[in-house]
Parts: sequence; structure tokens; C-alpha cells
Amino acid sequence: MKVFLECIPCFLKQALEAVRLATLDETLQEKALRVVLQEIGKISWNTSPPHIGWKVHRLVKQITGNSDPYALLKEQSNETALRLYPGLETRVKEAVDPFEMAVRLALAGNMIDFGARPGEKVDIEKEIEEVMHAPLDKRALAGFKNAVVRANRVLFLGDNAGEIVFDKLLIQQIGPEKITYAVKAKPIINDATLEDAKVVGLTELVPVIDNGSDYPGTVLTACSQTFLDIYKRADIVVAKGQGNYETLNDVDKPIVFLLKVKCPVIARDVKKQVGDLVIYLHNVYI
Amino acid sequence: MKVFLECIPCFLKQALEAVRLATLDETLQEKALRVVLQEIGKISWNTSPPHIGWKVHRLVKQITGNSDPYALLKEQSNETALRLYPGLETRVKEAVDPFEMAVRLALAGNMIDFGARPGEKVDIEKEIEEVMHAPLDKRALAGFKNAVVRANRVLFLGDNAGEIVFDKLLIQQIGPEKITYAVKAKPIINDATLEDAKVVGLTELVPVIDNGSDYPGTVLTACSQTFLDIYKRADIVVAKGQGNYETLNDVDKPIVFLLKVKCPVIARDVKKQVGDLVIYLHNVYI
Repeated sequence: MKVFLECIPCFLKQALEAVRLATLDETLQEKALRVVLQEIGKISWNTSPPHIGWKVHRLVKQITGNSDPYALLKEQSNETALRLYPGLETRVKEAVDPFEMAVRLALAGNMIDFGARPGEKVDIEKEIEEVMHAPLDKRALAGFKNAVVRANRVLFLGDNAGEIVFDKLLIQQIGPEKITYAVKAKPIINDATLEDAKVVGLTELVPVIDNGSDYPGTVLTACSQTFLDIYKRADIVVAKGQGNYETLNDVDKPIVFLLKVKCPVIARDVKKQVGDLVIYLHNVYI
Repeated sequence: MKVFLECIPCFLKQALEAVRLATLDETLQEKALRVVLQEIGKISWNTSPPHIGWKVHRLVKQITGNSDPYALLKEQSNETALRLYPGLETRVKEAVDPFEMAVRLALAGNMIDFGARPGEKVDIEKEIEEVMHAPLDKRALAGFKNAVVRANRVLFLGDNAGEIVFDKLLIQQIGPEKITYAVKAKPIINDATLEDAKVVGLTELVPVIDNGSDYPGTVLTACSQTFLDIYKRADIVVAKGQGNYETLNDVDKPIVFLLKVKCPVIARDVKKQVGDLVIYLHNVYI
């Protein structure tokens, strides 16, 4: 998906959030914001939002000298999600349709996203209750379930720290034996890395690899050969979050995108409203 | 008041809104946004927000070739406000405290503001009902009333098209014979100009002058001598909206700022919450 003009102010909001997390030095904060402004003014916009997001966050890291501005937030997100996890497991176990419940909770976890909604604080417990009653496309849900039941090899593309805890519920439903789970190779915004996967116990459940890149999405041309081999062999890809949608919505591969719509640009693209839960079947036929 | 880092993404939102109103040509829209990005990246931020807003909007006008992107919105705002006006006049007449009612309505009118809340649509009738019950600082209200009762010469600094219709209610309460009303010399965002003042009948009620400048606020160093003479002779200034606050909150003159808080930066500065009604007495002693 290409960058729209609406994305431009949002990149600046992201940069502002990142510089403030990266340093308390106001001179450095201003310097970084200025460089971001001038860089966005120059570079091509004929690319996906995560391409520009990557450049923005790289500049912030370089100028502030902080290689992981979201470290503390990621740690807190993991802790919060782990604290909630036992209760969520019970919910899934006791649900009329445990698969649907796990999907709903995996979508609730997608709200822990500092890239798409910079500066906004998410009350994840409130989010969980809302997601329980939010409309969900039952036809797409059935298509998703059929596709993972039929599949032997599922590649699960994770998104953010904290959120990856919620993904464990869905992994249990799909069958951990089928799944390889991919995270980012280096810190980018609050996207999960191998370290997060270890902290939350995901590595004990499924093989976790990094994708060899640190785009806040999945830019195939930047991914490692190891990742690409697994990607190619996968019967289906489960991809969480807007960043993965923005970078993979035009590839020739069966993908189930799971995301909560966080901005009007994505809403327009998937023909939903901001706040909607989306199970988007791409090259997956019911 | 100085620019804060939070203002930077907001300038881009303003620019995005303005380029879209200015032209349907997407190449020109992108070109203008790029120039704005690079310009904001370079210019001093050690100035007030209206200084940068002025540069942003000047660039948009230059690049798109549209000298008044908000013309239609201004026309619509005036029409809507004029349609509501007879009902509002009755409300003031029948109010227990007509002065307070006129102040509340003048504050409701301040919501017609495309600069402070780019892209957001305001339901002005809903706004009026909300403003009826919103908390208002009664001590500041009394101070404001006393100050204008005592004053012989009041300079009223208008803000936006549409909003100026609401100001007529307050002008009636203060006494039109004391008042000179000032508008902008040229179109800037949706700020009212002499044309708007004529359209809404303000010129029949009080002498209306333009301030000689087109900053979206009141930058004294840019104002005409005619304006400055009236400003100097005024016993008190009544200044509507955030732009006037941002440009006049440190001058040595008795000013009553009337505004609805629309952004966190102003909220912090006036020690209120976003959405609050503010009567801010500056060098006015109760």
C-alpha cells in the first residue's frame, strides 16, 4: 500500500513521540525533528508507509543516540499482557467458540501499537471488553479457520511487544506444531524482537525467527534468506497489524491479515471504519 | 507564546487541510506539502505558532495559486451562523444573565476554527448546547464585565468567519458605541476579513477596521499604524481565539482573552483542559 498525503502529519507525530522517548535533551529533540521534516520533504512517497516510518525512526535513533527509544514501553507492554494472560486463557477455554475468542483477543492485542496511534494511551483491559462485543466478519473467520486447518505450514508474522502475548492464544488454537513465528531483527518502534519473544515465553511454544530486517512491517526485499525460505514454504501466512498489511497487501501469497483499523487511510483501503476488527483474506478462498 | 514541539505535526495537518482545499491537483498538493516540510525544518521555532502558521499558509497559497483556500468554508460558516442568529438573540434577551449568555455564545462561536483543529468538522448547534452547561469562571466573568463597563474605548479583536456573527451578541452587551472591531487585512485560514464583516452586518453595528496584517493572530509589529493607534487608545482589548492569545499573551496591555481550548499546548499554558471555556484576564484586575 502506498503512502497517502494524510500519512505525512502522522509521520511527524510518530517522530515527535519517538524523540521524546529517546531523549530528554530538548535541543536534540528539536534537531531530530528538523532532520525528519527535511528528510520527509525530500524522499520519495511512492512507497509504503513502513518504508518512510523506518527512515523516520532511523533518523531519530541516529540523532538522539538512543537505539531503542521504546524499550521501556515494550517491557511494560509485555508485563501487562503477561499479567492478563492466565485470565485470557480461561476465556478462550470457556468460550463457545474458542477459535473466535482467540482471534478476538489477538485483535485486542493489536491495539498495543505506538506506531499507528502515536501518543495515545491504550487501556488494554477496556480494549479487551470492547473487542468481545465488536462485530466480526463470520464468513472471513470461517475462511481463516478452514485455511489454517488445511495448512501444514503456517508462518505467523508478529507485530508489537505485548501483542505477541495475545498471539499465544491464537497459536494454541491453530496448532503450535504448524507454526513458525517471525519477529523483527532489530528494535523499531514497539515492534517485537527475539528478546520480547523469549521474555513472554513464545520461544517455548513455537520456533521463533527474526525476519532479518527492522522495517515496521514485512518488506520482503529486505528480509533474510532464512525468513524468505520459510515464507515461500508456508501454505499460509497470518500477518498481524497495519504495518504488515501495508507492506504485504499486494504480494502473490495466501495471507490472512488480522488488524484493528487505527487510521482513516487503512479504513478506506480495507473498506471498514476506524476501530473495526478486520480479518482480511488475501488470496485465501473460502 | 512560543511554538512547542507538539505544534510541528499540527502545522503539517493544517498544511494538508489547506492544500486539499486549495487545489484538486494531487501533484500540486504533494509539491506544496513538500515545500512546507522543508521550510518548517529550516525556519526558527523561537516564535509564536501564528508566525509559522502564516508561513505555512503563505506557501500553500503560492504553490497552489489559490489565494483563499478557505473561501467557501468561510461563506458557509457565515451563512450557518446568520441562520442561527435570531434564535441566539432571543436566548440572550431571555437569559437570567444576558451578559453571561452572550459570552457563552461568543465562546461557542470560537469553535468554528479550522486552524486549531484542522480536518475536524464542528457541529455548531451541538456546540451551542454544550456551551450552555459548560463550567465558566464566574470571577473572571465578573472581572470582564466590570472592565468593559468601566472602559470608554474597547478594541474587539475578531477571529474567524462565522464566529464574528456570534460576537455581535457580545458587542450588543458591551455597548457598540464603545467598540472598534478588527479583522484581518487579507485571507488567512478561515479568519474573518472586512468582506466577512460586511456580509454578516457587523459593519452596520460598529466601526470595523482591518489590522493591516494577515497573521492568524495579532502580531503588533506587522499591524498598520491605524490599527496601532486604536490599539494604544483602547482602555481594554477583547481578543477572541487561540491565535490572538498566542500572539498577545505577553504584551503590556489590559486584554480579556476569550477562547475555547482546542489543543494540549494551550491547555497547559492557560492551566485548563482541552474543551474548556476560557475567560483569561491579562493585566485586568478585579
